[in-house]
Amino acid sequence: MILTVTLNTALDLTYRVRSLRPHASHRVSAVAERPGGKGLNVARVLAALGHEVTVTGFAGGGTGREVREQLAGVPGVVDALVPIAGATRRTIAVVDEGTGDTTQLNEPGPQVAPAEWAAFREAYEGLLGPAAAVALCGSLPPGVPVGAYAGLIRAARSAGVPVLLDTSGEPLRRGVAARPDIVKPNAEELAELTGSHEPLRAARDACRRGAHAVVASLGPQGLLAHTPEGNWRATPPAAVHGNPTGAGDSAVAGLLSGLVEHLTWPDRLTHAIALSAATVAAPAAGEFDRPTYDRLRTQIKVTNKPATT
Amino acid sequence: MILTVTLNTALDLTYRVRSLRPHASHRVSAVAERPGGKGLNVARVLAALGHEVTVTGFAGGGTGREVREQLAGVPGVVDALVPIAGATRRTIAVVDEGTGDTTQLNEPGPQVAPAEWAAFREAYEGLLGPAAAVALCGSLPPGVPVGAYAGLIRAARSAGVPVLLDTSGEPLRRGVAARPDIVKPNAEELAELTGSHEPLRAARDACRRGAHAVVASLGPQGLLAHTPEGNWRATPPAAVHGNPTGAGDSAVAGLLSGLVEHLTWPDRLTHAIALSAATVAAPAAGEFDRPTYDRLRTQIKVTNKPATT
Repeated sequence: MILTVTLNTALDLTYRVRSLRPHASHRVSAVAERPGGKGLNVARVLAALGHEVTVTGFAGGGTGREVREQLAGVPGVVDALVPIAGATRRTIAVVDEGTGDTTQLNEPGPQVAPAEWAAFREAYEGLLGPAAAVALCGSLPPGVPVGAYAGLIRAARSAGVPVLLDTSGEPLRRGVAARPDIVKPNAEELAELTGSHEPLRAARDACRRGAHAVVASLGPQGLLAHTPEGNWRATPPAAVHGNPTGAGDSAVAGLLSGLVEHLTWPDRLTHAIALSAATVAAPAAGEFDRPTYDRLRTQIKVTNKPATT
Repeated sequence: MILTVTLNTALDLTYRVRSLRPHASHRVSAVAERPGGKGLNVARVLAALGHEVTVTGFAGGGTGREVREQLAGVPGVVDALVPIAGATRRTIAVVDEGTGDTTQLNEPGPQVAPAEWAAFREAYEGLLGPAAAVALCGSLPPGVPVGAYAGLIRAARSAGVPVLLDTSGEPLRRGVAARPDIVKPNAEELAELTGSHEPLRAARDACRRGAHAVVASLGPQGLLAHTPEGNWRATPPAAVHGNPTGAGDSAVAGLLSGLVEHLTWPDRLTHAIALSAATVAAPAAGEFDRPTYDRLRTQIKVTNKPATT
């Protein structure tokens, strides 16, 4: 199975309103609820591709209970979330039906107690045994040490399990130094890590800092990979219109799927971009449009001499 | 005991953000959660005054469970909510810390099935037996017939239980015709019912339509009462600054409390205004600032010849 870790899970709500105006009162015309946090999105995409996936991280309170109840309805996903006293955060995406714009409201994560963090570490080490790969995804809730991912990466490497890291800021900086197999920053996260806004140069620098391979997601410009086997740039045939939320999570799912299926790097990137674009065409993160995915897989261009700009 | 009916209960969330800007992403700095819907606010105020209160209406889904768990922590409130398959709605008040403005997002209520409405009617008739008074509060969720309150008023009158109605629009219009003991519209609701923007004339008209007594809440201008015992206008000594959400619910609590304690109308109005103003001074609906309440009770001016403007 593939293990995904989401320390800061969320109950993701999407509201549709006619027109969002500060200081006014709005009737929400439609509400969508789903389990959220990057690692849960990755898991749902992997499960839809036919992989066995186990999710871990933290869940607590009434919102955590709702997340777990909804996960129970996703075939192929095993819930190994660790209970905490604090309540799982909500995120609210308010979609303005007039402009199509989305306004995001993100609750802070719950406070995690030292004993809860220790319980998670123990559960995680047990889950590494049967894991073919592990993905560490997203932000850290309050109370979890900033070097958390570095420790989880070292544990995975000791257990011989390939590990992918998708986070930002200081947790990314410390995680990279623990030598993960793959890091998947977006352009902004990569620039923040390395100080360089030139993606190939920045990816090389991230590898010097410890990452075995760096796959940078560059939005509509596709993916750039810097790996021990070579460098590639993979681009979709044309921009896909829709909602980009979760596109990066689907790229992570594609990379993990390709990793456990022992695909070549160009095939992994093709897989990752097709899933990513098919998620933009789908209504929500953690989902993808199957016809778009099937069509794009034959149309992705992978070049092994990426431009340096 | 006093019975309050909230057919469209809510999980009320208050978010604080630095500055609300459409199309931006916001970190919520603080989250407050409480049981919501007008009748639950009324019940919490009555319980804080020392009354025994039973709440009924509908609750369902994960949000309904959270509402019930929170109600269990309120001393003096007995939960007789009727379970439904649909999920209790959320309301979100987003407070802009820069301007102090509040932006409101209200989810639609859950769909209530005919069998659920029938189950509620049966539970309600059983609860009328021990009730000293009943308040019917707020909007109707989808599936509940628009004449619902009229039927509930007739049942209360048959059981000899005094009934107060606090709603708006067509449910108010139909409810008034069923001859409730008290209706408590605000100025806008009263004008919508009667077509008159002159509160005393409108209150007289509402009585002609069936209400025994009308108490109109006029915001900072206080209350206007048109009753078989006379007409009064009650005004607070000065405007209270704060959050007016729930001020009307606290006025309802004051009127009910005064009713079951057999206070005179002027004393009921004094009670209602002091509670209402003390709620503006409190952080949230369903709460009131006790020192403000105690201070204002001696300062309310009640005149028995209200002006006609």
